[in-house]
Amino acid sequence: VPLYRVTLAYDGTDFLGWQLQRPGGGRTVQGALEEALGRLAGGVRVAVTGAGRTDAGVHAVGQVASFDLPREMPAGELQRALNGLLPSDVRVVDAAPAPPGFHARRSAVTKTYRYELDYGTIQLPQRRLFAGFAPGPLDGEAVRAAAALYVGRHDFASLASAGGSVRTTVRTVARSEARLDGATLVYEAEADGFLRKMVRSMVGGLIAAGRGAMPPEELARALAARDRRAWPPPAPACGLTLVGVSYPPAPRC
Amino acid sequence: VPLYRVTLAYDGTDFLGWQLQRPGGGRTVQGALEEALGRLAGGVRVAVTGAGRTDAGVHAVGQVASFDLPREMPAGELQRALNGLLPSDVRVVDAAPAPPGFHARRSAVTKTYRYELDYGTIQLPQRRLFAGFAPGPLDGEAVRAAAALYVGRHDFASLASAGGSVRTTVRTVARSEARLDGATLVYEAEADGFLRKMVRSMVGGLIAAGRGAMPPEELARALAARDRRAWPPPAPACGLTLVGVSYPPAPRC
Repeated sequence: VPLYRVTLAYDGTDFLGWQLQRPGGGRTVQGALEEALGRLAGGVRVAVTGAGRTDAGVHAVGQVASFDLPREMPAGELQRALNGLLPSDVRVVDAAPAPPGFHARRSAVTKTYRYELDYGTIQLPQRRLFAGFAPGPLDGEAVRAAAALYVGRHDFASLASAGGSVRTTVRTVARSEARLDGATLVYEAEADGFLRKMVRSMVGGLIAAGRGAMPPEELARALAARDRRAWPPPAPACGLTLVGVSYPPAPRC
Repeated sequence: VPLYRVTLAYDGTDFLGWQLQRPGGGRTVQGALEEALGRLAGGVRVAVTGAGRTDAGVHAVGQVASFDLPREMPAGELQRALNGLLPSDVRVVDAAPAPPGFHARRSAVTKTYRYELDYGTIQLPQRRLFAGFAPGPLDGEAVRAAAALYVGRHDFASLASAGGSVRTTVRTVARSEARLDGATLVYEAEADGFLRKMVRSMVGGLIAAGRGAMPPEELARALAARDRRAWPPPAPACGLTLVGVSYPPAPRC
């Protein structure tokens, strides 16, 4: 059976997140995609794997999903057909045949997330579903110093949400950059993987540092403590977007 | 009684527009503001005047409203109290005492609107409530030439929505600028006033010009015809934002 990968953008506001819930459990992106694929496949269930299990309210512009389709079809036609069947808050922005053995989650090399935080006095209503809000001021120097702390291989147990069942809380962060632009903080992080709520906790750390509540040195100690009680609370979900997923380059001649 | 002016930002998605409807007629920004003011004033109705009567789905970052309040209160306190009472899709971004005789609509000198139009192949779901969508390509040269046509004093009868009851369809456009940025067209227009759906019709003209369906010369003839059947259809409401309203400078020493 032919294997495909699609790149998805979605407005996470009205979803309980990526992952399929038990029947009646609520609207999910995976559920919406599987429903559209099931209709394309004439009623057969098409199981979908997503690269990142985004939480409720979290958005994506570059989520990647893979699935086997019972019948072969040109990728452009698959994309158009899915966009005709999907609700308006999810779009397939790219579709392609996947190489044998491709798995959206296990084949991923890195994931990149972006977080936007408005820290002015008042947040524009137009931004309330796409950016977190935390009244400032924030010290730019301290925010950037805190962002730099995350780079490299660390045990991020202090930033992991309770109840996660992961083998290891060690992750390698390749890039962690914050810029303050007007009254908006834009943060991007790329890593080989992220624990549940890890990016939102990273941003919680940036806010604490920017407000002077926890200077970068203290944040470094809280990271080393591997204890989530030592860490500031995570930033709200709505500011977070899964920007993209990278895969090994295809073999070439 | 003390007179105030407030500057409002709103996400117009879930409003039937600015203007109060008959009871049970639906949610409006004026209605939300009057309800909040009524609660502040201890149940007395506070009638509000808005500078621009934005339509359903149209947003604002700089709408201005004026009203008499039964009791005097510091402007900062008024702002905070209103933001505590208003729904989350409307914010008071500024509040100030207004000079005697101030009237948000009649005192206005110019209004500025912005329209955003995505013209790529696929629109990001995150943008669907804040930008129109019309698949391109658009010719930037033709779009800018069309935008330049609107500048100056013209009879805009071709761009007026049916059913409006205005004394004159002549308006003076001080500024009309389009820029194409990636796959988004950002258009701004400033005028002494706009007819109903006029900005959206202006953008309809830009799209027709950009697609080559109506070259700028032909658009100029359609404008001069003062006949709305000669004009391309208006762009959708969701891309439109009332950016600001200008008033005469206060007298100074």
